[in-house]
Amino acid sequence: MELLEQRIIKDGVVKKGNVLKVDSFLNHQIDIELYSEIGAEFARLYKDCDVTKILTIEASGIGIACVTAQSFNNVPVVFAKKNKTTNISDDVYSSKVVSYTHGREYEIVVSKSYIKPEDRILIIDDFLANGKALEGLIKIINQAGATVVGAGIVIEKGFQPGGENLRKQGVRVESLAIVESMNDETGEIVFRH
Amino acid sequence: MELLEQRIIKDGVVKKGNVLKVDSFLNHQIDIELYSEIGAEFARLYKDCDVTKILTIEASGIGIACVTAQSFNNVPVVFAKKNKTTNISDDVYSSKVVSYTHGREYEIVVSKSYIKPEDRILIIDDFLANGKALEGLIKIINQAGATVVGAGIVIEKGFQPGGENLRKQGVRVESLAIVESMNDETGEIVFRH
Repeated sequence: MELLEQRIIKDGVVKKGNVLKVDSFLNHQIDIELYSEIGAEFARLYKDCDVTKILTIEASGIGIACVTAQSFNNVPVVFAKKNKTTNISDDVYSSKVVSYTHGREYEIVVSKSYIKPEDRILIIDDFLANGKALEGLIKIINQAGATVVGAGIVIEKGFQPGGENLRKQGVRVESLAIVESMNDETGEIVFRH
Repeated sequence: MELLEQRIIKDGVVKKGNVLKVDSFLNHQIDIELYSEIGAEFARLYKDCDVTKILTIEASGIGIACVTAQSFNNVPVVFAKKNKTTNISDDVYSSKVVSYTHGREYEIVVSKSYIKPEDRILIIDDFLANGKALEGLIKIINQAGATVVGAGIVIEKGFQPGGENLRKQGVRVESLAIVESMNDETGEIVFRH
């Protein structure tokens, strides 16, 4: 997505440790018009897929998912909650996720009431790197017996293995920008096309 | 807001400990059309206030804030983060918040880059009970020297002191539904009008 790549070049900052800081427009301060463009692009990519629900994970996925849902005839959004407690009740689907960014493991939970076997679910998230959060969401959808239509990712770090692993497993992953490489000394960002 | 009160009566569940569960449409599964109606109502209430930015707090405020921003000519949204992550620079405004719900204290942070003295800020959140999160957000806006236009709250628990305290301090608080009382045995919910 040309508009997104241009914005990343203009306002993204490459930091040490493979960090791409895009918090001026994507995940701390939010450019709502850009979100609308992103949502419209996901709708174009998944338009014939009969999506009945959008699933994301707190926190930064929520806004993108809500605006994207508007381009899918206002299908409901469900966001998985990150749970730090060990008390998981029987009325939720849950999955463990290892976060490399934060160096810890956490559990994600979704109430069983909000994913049904007949649901055709599009997963939305801001970043895909190692893919652990996405794998956790897919596990939850599988627990519910629902269908994973695919994943809509805003920025994929193509030099980390998440996207490749998921595609090998047969998951449709559409990333609007795939970073092939980036350099924290020069600030250069190269996209895959 | 009649539509919202009707929805709370229909789908809200009163639980022990003053908990009003609205996670089937507001803060776990999300009814996007309802969010749009909520955003339009906040825009009606604050239409002459020259709002330049919407501030909220992760996680459940983010979606409401993003959809509301569309009714304010797509002003940027900023969400306060509850924990410092490696993706946030040290250059932040911060405030401590005591959560009664979770029985703990946490820090909320906003990058200094995203609130400027000339900003006129509308705070958006899903719930107002004891008002501690809202007070934390106001402290952050004050640190930045920006103007608090007011707060747009979806559901206020009128029997808890947050709303009254803030209004006494001169903060404009507009809550789309104010619960006067609720009963976890009968399930009855009474609204203030």
